[in-house]
Amino acid sequence: MFDETLSNIVNRTDGAVGALIMGLDGIPVARIDKPDVGFDIDVIAAEFTALIRKVLRNAEDVAVGPLHELIVTAERHTFLIKPITVDYFLVLALRDSGGVGRARFELRKAQLMLEEEFSV
Amino acid sequence: MFDETLSNIVNRTDGAVGALIMGLDGIPVARIDKPDVGFDIDVIAAEFTALIRKVLRNAEDVAVGPLHELIVTAERHTFLIKPITVDYFLVLALRDSGGVGRARFELRKAQLMLEEEFSV
Repeated sequence: MFDETLSNIVNRTDGAVGALIMGLDGIPVARIDKPDVGFDIDVIAAEFTALIRKVLRNAEDVAVGPLHELIVTAERHTFLIKPITVDYFLVLALRDSGGVGRARFELRKAQLMLEEEFSV
Repeated sequence: MFDETLSNIVNRTDGAVGALIMGLDGIPVARIDKPDVGFDIDVIAAEFTALIRKVLRNAEDVAVGPLHELIVTAERHTFLIKPITVDYFLVLALRDSGGVGRARFELRKAQLMLEEEFSV
């Protein structure tokens, strides 16, 4: 079920090389990566857990409201990170920044679907 | 000079409420904020310095290349963060995410201009 959701996101987004559902406790729930992903997706997962925790804490501190989305553009990859509930988040890795628009749309759809699953 | 660059970015971008040039050591270099900015821009500046340090370290760790851009979308505000050189970065705060496309363009232009100033 989760794998299918992640596969759909990766298949529909140009340049997508991997997708993850992560718990904020650092434990991955589901994961899809293409053979040409180009980096260690486990390392990415761990780094982003720490990062999103920090951002969530910041967002609270500065009263800008709950976090909706985080986009990290590096030279070779772009990462979109989207909270599902307060305890889980989605990560999508793209090979370049070409597909960011479509990626945001797919993540928004997936978030709405997954939110229900994870709230029970 | 820096204030003018920041003013230009804020004036040309729909929904922009503030812009900063920050050192990675946490010391702000220049700052423009509108009266209706809606949050404490000093707190934001401090938080983002810690955040961008973390992201720069991550980007190095996971071999995805140098950071080009970071976009944080919260409920009430969106923040675009762009490194100028290895020691300085730009922050642009928007009231909502409407003007993100234009904001990215203005930051890219500003980055190219400022890069020269900050490299001397």
